Parts: sequence; structure tokens; C-alpha cells
Amino acid sequence: MNNEVNLRVLLKSRPVGFPTEDDFQIVESSIPEPEEGEILVKVEWLSLDPYMRGRMNDAKSYASPVEIGEVMVGGAAGTVVNSRSPAFSVGDTVEGRLGWQSYALSDGSEVRKIDETLGPLQTSIGILGMPGLTAYFGFLDVCEPNPGETVVVSAASGAVGQIVGQIAKIMGCKVIGTAGSDSKVQYIVDELGFDSGINYKTQNVGEALDEECPEGIDVYFDNVGGLVTDAVMDRLNIRARIAVCGQISQYNLKEPDLAPRNFGILTRSQAKMEGFLVFAYENRYDEGLNMMAKWIKEGKLRYREDVVEGLENAPRTFIGMLNGENFGKTLIKVSN
Amino acid sequence: MNNEVNLRVLLKSRPVGFPTEDDFQIVESSIPEPEEGEILVKVEWLSLDPYMRGRMNDAKSYASPVEIGEVMVGGAAGTVVNSRSPAFSVGDTVEGRLGWQSYALSDGSEVRKIDETLGPLQTSIGILGMPGLTAYFGFLDVCEPNPGETVVVSAASGAVGQIVGQIAKIMGCKVIGTAGSDSKVQYIVDELGFDSGINYKTQNVGEALDEECPEGIDVYFDNVGGLVTDAVMDRLNIRARIAVCGQISQYNLKEPDLAPRNFGILTRSQAKMEGFLVFAYENRYDEGLNMMAKWIKEGKLRYREDVVEGLENAPRTFIGMLNGENFGKTLIKVSN
Repeated sequence: MNNEVNLRVLLKSRPVGFPTEDDFQIVESSIPEPEEGEILVKVEWLSLDPYMRGRMNDAKSYASPVEIGEVMVGGAAGTVVNSRSPAFSVGDTVEGRLGWQSYALSDGSEVRKIDETLGPLQTSIGILGMPGLTAYFGFLDVCEPNPGETVVVSAASGAVGQIVGQIAKIMGCKVIGTAGSDSKVQYIVDELGFDSGINYKTQNVGEALDEECPEGIDVYFDNVGGLVTDAVMDRLNIRARIAVCGQISQYNLKEPDLAPRNFGILTRSQAKMEGFLVFAYENRYDEGLNMMAKWIKEGKLRYREDVVEGLENAPRTFIGMLNGENFGKTLIKVSN
Repeated sequence: MNNEVNLRVLLKSRPVGFPTEDDFQIVESSIPEPEEGEILVKVEWLSLDPYMRGRMNDAKSYASPVEIGEVMVGGAAGTVVNSRSPAFSVGDTVEGRLGWQSYALSDGSEVRKIDETLGPLQTSIGILGMPGLTAYFGFLDVCEPNPGETVVVSAASGAVGQIVGQIAKIMGCKVIGTAGSDSKVQYIVDELGFDSGINYKTQNVGEALDEECPEGIDVYFDNVGGLVTDAVMDRLNIRARIAVCGQISQYNLKEPDLAPRNFGILTRSQAKMEGFLVFAYENRYDEGLNMMAKWIKEGKLRYREDVVEGLENAPRTFIGMLNGENFGKTLIKVSN
């Protein structure tokens, strides 16, 4: 890592189907100087998250797409190394949408200072940041879990899923997770305390759910969509709640994935399916962060990080994550 | 109509795809005598509703299927002609799940007395009965409409849709209905006060929605599913609400209707899709009935009935309704 230049990862072309490394361009530029009111952040950690795949498309969504030639979007954390803003001092640790680059300018409006007594800096873009808050509000507010209910979480060892499952246990639910390898299944059960796990690649998900959820499914926190979701929907209890957090199985398809329409299940189950974005809960972030920090301190909430060194490895690591090759929260260690 | 016998319509066979008249059997039996605690009702009106198609299948649902050889289920209204129950007198008009038959025994538990000052007897199985309550609670409670919002209703001239659209107007919403003929479209606009209508059989629904809903769609009350629903989902506003009342386009398919998975729309729109059954609101029926009776009296709520005489015509009329041949609430006049 050469820290004397600003290493940046740009979107070079819009992927059709799965992204390839050729869709990204890594460039070196000079380290920028902050204008009046701006800060310069030396990035230490970059978060890689599935939503970024959507930003690579030129499609209507909740946020604008990344333009060709622009730096890839992403949450990142680092240290203020130059400040022309009265709100920030050199040495402050901050987190925000700083992008896939080793140095980032910010006017401070989308950056928050990090209290490292709550957890190491990288947790500010993980369990104590956007992924953690997504799990916290998506599960507690959208799913409205009750003690004793059966909860299914897909992508259960991922950044969001692992937290959802543990919060569900804290809430007194029975929790079943789906994941893509036996080691991930073993991890969520043995290390995180899920009641059971299903390897969706090697098991028949429907049959496994019948076995693990003999009383049906009350809550489903969906990160994946596709066949796993179909199997869950066939087993919903009355007044079940589904939080649609992500649909990673659908993000990299060249052709639409055709499936039987199944909205009728919602009627006969009187079930609710709700999509959400964490930004809707912005005025309650402190509540979520404080609660999760408390649970971490109490040993009730654990997290697993999948760290890759070097920003130049971000494209490859991102593609691997979309393929489920990560194991826990995917992070790039950009600098020390 | 021979009123000296009990004419009954039984389920003869389970349809594959669209029902045919051969799936029903019309039989004559003697008029039954009530046991102690029972009443005998002479049925005057039978309601035909899309949900009945589901009961013809041997499939898991919110209610048990009709067994082969059993009388078809259905809401019906009539007059008590013999009573061995202290709760009912001869001459009472009642409504309940009396089935497709000209005389019905009941223990009174699923029958309610009708106050005909609120409306003619048949409204107790229409606008002032299950279909009206479905519209009232499904729209007001599930969709939570706000004044000025854009509401789309499918099957808009049907028993439920026509009421949803009018309640939406009462609530100050902009309302667009979809229906299957120009005369239905004209009716919902000219007679019921919808802002506009779309003939889904002759118009491109997506293009028509773009034209009629330039500010997007906030609320969708879905009776049909399928392509109409796909087009609506592509135009949802942030925090849109979808009430999944029915999916009539899917009830008579021999093979599943394959379509691109689109749950991801819910996430980017932060939208909610909720299935409901009117029975969930049982303890609030009086509220709904009184409010709708008031609106009818005030001229704010109108309704259209599609009446066919003679129980022997129920199978043919039911099949026609599944084909969209009805125009308004489908009723069979069983006797006078």
C-alpha cells in the first residue's frame, strides 16, 4: 500500500450479470487538499456490502447509480488528517460514505465521529454501523418479534444475518438460519447460538424447514430472495411478518428469475411483507447503537469479520462476497 | 323454482383450471327439520365470491376445502321459517354461511340478524356484509390512506373494488381503477366518481398508469394479481402500501404463472404488502357497517348488483364471474 497517493476504485463499466474485475478501474491520484469547511480523511477500513451491486446499474432505485468513471460508493472509516472544518479536528476518527478510496474529502455532512470506546473503528461500519442498524431496526421494528416465535434468517452468517439471529435469541425467539456452507451453519449454531441452521446448497430447504420449524414460521428476515424465500413462504404462520432486507440471489442475473407468483400466500396467511431501508430510522440510530454496544459488552452479541488487506483487492473481494465466499462482515483493510 | 324441496348445489369434482358446470351437481332433497336449538332459513339471496374457487381445491388454506358431495360454501341471506332456538323467531331475516341451497339449517352460531332499515336484505351479503367489510377494513386499516395520495384498485367494478374506490374518494384520495371492459371503466368513473379507469384487456396497463399516476402510486388494493399487479409494483412510491385481498388471475391456472421475482421493489420503495382476511376484524364489524350505512344514506357510497335468478344458475354464474363477466356484486336470487 502506497499511502503517498490516493488509490481509488472507479466504476469502469456497468456489469451485465455478475460483475468482473474488468468492471472496475484502479487509479492513483494525488492526495486532495480540503477546501474551507472540508476535511480530509485517511481511510482505514472499507465496508463491502451487497447493496453496492445495485449502484452499479443505471436503474431507478432509492439512490442514484454510480456514474461510469466515478469512485465506487461505500461506507468507510478512518482518521481526519487535515481539517478546515470547525466541527472536526485532526486525529478524529470518523465514518461515512467515503467511497472506495484511500483518502476522501468530506464536507462533514455525511460523516459521524466515532466513539472507539464502544468498539474498534471498523465496527462503526459493521455491527455498530449500517449493517448492525439494518439488522436491529429491520428485525425489531419491521418483524415485531414475540418471545417463543419461530424466526428464519437467510444469509445468516453475513454482516446483517448474524446480528438478526442473535437479536432474535435475545428476544426469546427460536432461530433458524440458512447459509451456504457447513462451516457457516456450524458457526451460527455453535458460536452464535442459533437453534439450527440449513445449508441451502446441499439440503432441501423445504424439507429442512419442515423438520426445524414444525410449528411453522412467524418471522422471516430475508437477505437473499429466490428459492430459499419460496420455501419459507410456503410455511408461514398466520400473521407472519417478512422483512425484505435484500435479495442477493437476484442481483447478478442476466435474465429475470421466473418463479410462480405467490402473493396469494400473504392473503391466506394474513401475512405482511415489508421492504425497508435503514435510513428511515436515522433519528433512532443512537438507540440502536447504544443497545447493541451494551449487548456486545454483556457478551450477548458477537460478530465475525472477514478482513482482506489492500484496497486493490476490493473488486475481487466484492465479487467473492456476491458469490457467498465471505464468512462474516466483509471488510477491506485500506491502511493502518 | 320449486320451493317445496330443498335445492342444493354440491361440489361434484375438484376442477383442474377453470371450473366447469360438470364440477357441480344440483340435487333436490326434502326440506329439513330443525333440531332443538336450530333454525331453518329459507334462503332468498346467495352471494357468489371469488374466494369460493379456493374452497373447491383440496389445498391448505385459511378454511377447510369443501368436500366432494358437500354443499358449496357461501354467504346467503333469507328468512327464518322455523325456529327451535330461543335466539331467533320465525320471520327474522338473517345472513350467514348458509351455502348454495334454498333451505339451510343453522345452530345460529354463524348467523346474524339483519336490520333491513340499513338496506335491502341482499346488501347484508354485499356492501353491508362480507364484501363491504373486506373493502372497508382492507382499505382503511391495511392501506392507511392519506388525503391526496394516489390509490389504484384492481377489479374496480367488482363487489369489493367498487367500494374501495368510493371510500378512497371519501378519504380525499385520487383513485384509478382497473377493469375488464370499457363499460365497467365508464361506470366507475361516471357513476362512482373514480378519477380514471383503465381497461386492462385493451390498454397497456403500465403506459396507462404512467399517464394516470404521474406522481406514482401510494396505495394499491389488489384483487387480481398477475400482470396488473406487476405494472403497479413498478410504479410504487416510497412507503407505498399494498393490500393483497385477492389474486383472481391466479385461481384458475392449470400451470403456475411464472413471472420475474419482484420482492426487491418492496425494499427500494420501503413498501409494505399485506394479505388480510376480513374475519380478523370481526370485533369491529359494527363500526364498518354503521359507517358504510351512513355513507349510503348520505349518497356517498353507491353499489351495483349483478343479479341472476334461480339457484340452478349459480354454477354458470359463478364461472362467469371468475371470467369477469359479472358487472358489480354477483348475487343469485334464490327465492322471493
